[in-house]
Amino acid sequence: MYKHLFIPGPIDVREAVLERMATPMIGHRSKEMTVLQQRISKKIQTLMGTENVIVLYTSSGSGIMESAIRSVTRKKAAVFSVGAFGDRWYEMAVTNRVPADLFQSEPGEPTTPEMVDEVLATGEYDVVTVTHNETSSGIVNPVGAIGEVIKKYPDVLFLVDAVSSLGGDWIPVDEWGIDICITSTQKCIGVPPGMSFASVSERAYQAALQVEYRGFYLDLVKIYEMAKAKAQYPSTPSLSHMYALDYQLEYILHTEGLENRFARHARMAKKVQKWALRHFGLFAKEGYRSNTVTCVQNTRGIDVADLNAKLAPLGFVISDGYGKYKSKTFRISHMGDTQDLLLDELLANIDNILGL
Amino acid sequence: MYKHLFIPGPIDVREAVLERMATPMIGHRSKEMTVLQQRISKKIQTLMGTENVIVLYTSSGSGIMESAIRSVTRKKAAVFSVGAFGDRWYEMAVTNRVPADLFQSEPGEPTTPEMVDEVLATGEYDVVTVTHNETSSGIVNPVGAIGEVIKKYPDVLFLVDAVSSLGGDWIPVDEWGIDICITSTQKCIGVPPGMSFASVSERAYQAALQVEYRGFYLDLVKIYEMAKAKAQYPSTPSLSHMYALDYQLEYILHTEGLENRFARHARMAKKVQKWALRHFGLFAKEGYRSNTVTCVQNTRGIDVADLNAKLAPLGFVISDGYGKYKSKTFRISHMGDTQDLLLDELLANIDNILGL
Repeated sequence: MYKHLFIPGPIDVREAVLERMATPMIGHRSKEMTVLQQRISKKIQTLMGTENVIVLYTSSGSGIMESAIRSVTRKKAAVFSVGAFGDRWYEMAVTNRVPADLFQSEPGEPTTPEMVDEVLATGEYDVVTVTHNETSSGIVNPVGAIGEVIKKYPDVLFLVDAVSSLGGDWIPVDEWGIDICITSTQKCIGVPPGMSFASVSERAYQAALQVEYRGFYLDLVKIYEMAKAKAQYPSTPSLSHMYALDYQLEYILHTEGLENRFARHARMAKKVQKWALRHFGLFAKEGYRSNTVTCVQNTRGIDVADLNAKLAPLGFVISDGYGKYKSKTFRISHMGDTQDLLLDELLANIDNILGL
Repeated sequence: MYKHLFIPGPIDVREAVLERMATPMIGHRSKEMTVLQQRISKKIQTLMGTENVIVLYTSSGSGIMESAIRSVTRKKAAVFSVGAFGDRWYEMAVTNRVPADLFQSEPGEPTTPEMVDEVLATGEYDVVTVTHNETSSGIVNPVGAIGEVIKKYPDVLFLVDAVSSLGGDWIPVDEWGIDICITSTQKCIGVPPGMSFASVSERAYQAALQVEYRGFYLDLVKIYEMAKAKAQYPSTPSLSHMYALDYQLEYILHTEGLENRFARHARMAKKVQKWALRHFGLFAKEGYRSNTVTCVQNTRGIDVADLNAKLAPLGFVISDGYGKYKSKTFRISHMGDTQDLLLDELLANIDNILGL
């Protein structure tokens, strides 16, 4: 029996999108390929509010995050973290001997513009990484306000992990001054996992040219140059994902429309937050709660595996807490093409099972 | 109009396999996921003749080649090359500051066991990389005989690029002493591009534990450990490819059968070689000609782009030469699920167009 995925990715993919995954192959050095990648890139530029070059990676979002921090850090990266995926960026730096410092917020608290300003004032850093939407803790950071602070430091590059929010929340990349904005297909975009993409500014590319050891498969320079010159990919890309992405971006931009899509995500988030506050608590501080995934404080000490076992025959699954917050929290995603009614059904089922 | 792909990957994918790409999603940390990856791994072990751990990467074959050379080289890698993809392994070492030396054969000539023996006798190296089947030059190397030589040096790891041959040619991994044997989905396996896989020996894993900077996304240790312990992947994998791969491996092993599959590849290769020798020449020396892709010496100086323009309305496409051999050679692949009759039709069409 199919289970509707209320985990923070992968999520339910619409049947019409799945069907596009079954499109026959073309040569990856053909003109058809260039036309396909150009079309996808234009749509992503609209989705991100940017004129920067769009790069597509055949990897998960982690691949492109590593590519970014490794390829553009010349002096030192300041890694701001509000959870496991923020920490991950620091691990990526360390395992590639990229100089970096980690600045973690208190549990439930965001990265603030003031924290970033104080750190950058030292003059030690030329890269800042911030998580827009932290999948592990349901925190959304004030990336626009942080971008304003970073503009005071003209040599500093601004890298943003928007893996679990782009397509569900408005992130105007150029207005906020984001040099590299990263997401992947299997969350708010509503395509199966296996591909990720990012916008890359000219100055991020120029910085990468000054870095000597960028590796091969995740080398930002090679991928950027080939995307810009030919709208192709240095290796053989996942064509199936590109077909599905092209189709789904059309739906996002022109069938549902960005405004409706963002409003739906915000509306579903409010609903889950209200439900959580009535029966449990919320991990993220007020004002910093994600529109795409809610991290619930497990104040009743419920057994999430047991709840999932009871939800399964009803056709639903939610997510346990991540890493050290396993069992102390649990997570309900409301991202991609999930509709309000299905979310209502999930919450009603949980109420019934737990006798709330 | 659909063009049958006689390029060396991506190639035609059977409709039943394409349909599997459209399977709905499951959670990547679920039990269903573990069962799926275990099932795939068992089939790959049979396909490769190995009991080693199987790792799946959401990347092209290049991703896993880089992962291998970077993760296991402690002293220095001896990179043997008979073309562009052999050279690529050296570039992967250099861009990750992994010590390596490059040993290129003369054009059309293989890597020989004698060359490898002479290089290893210096005692400088702890890793050897060899291309089993070089996509750019249509050369197949004597990997079995090379493996015999390497067995004399117990501290040396043997890494093999079988990207364009595994599934079309018999590569008994354990018998030949291959520590890491790498392939990807879009060539002889007959699945769309976007995933790659490899067998990894226990001693390759032990070697990787001694290497300090292995990066994050392509870290062999993390991927190996998670595959072994849970049959899962550290990031979110391409589920769609896993469904298709599971289905197609069943077809390869139990519907067509390995023996028939290898015989078909060998038969098609003979046919193209015979045709090429009648009208042109062959790039690879006799005895070292690939069963999966033929590299034709363009002795008539035909314009490959022009030939492809005329083949397109007939529903076919072949490949130009690679890199520095562009226009001096051209390539016809005969891999995956391509059948003899379709190959006959291609060759007849080329004869007609060129008036041969």
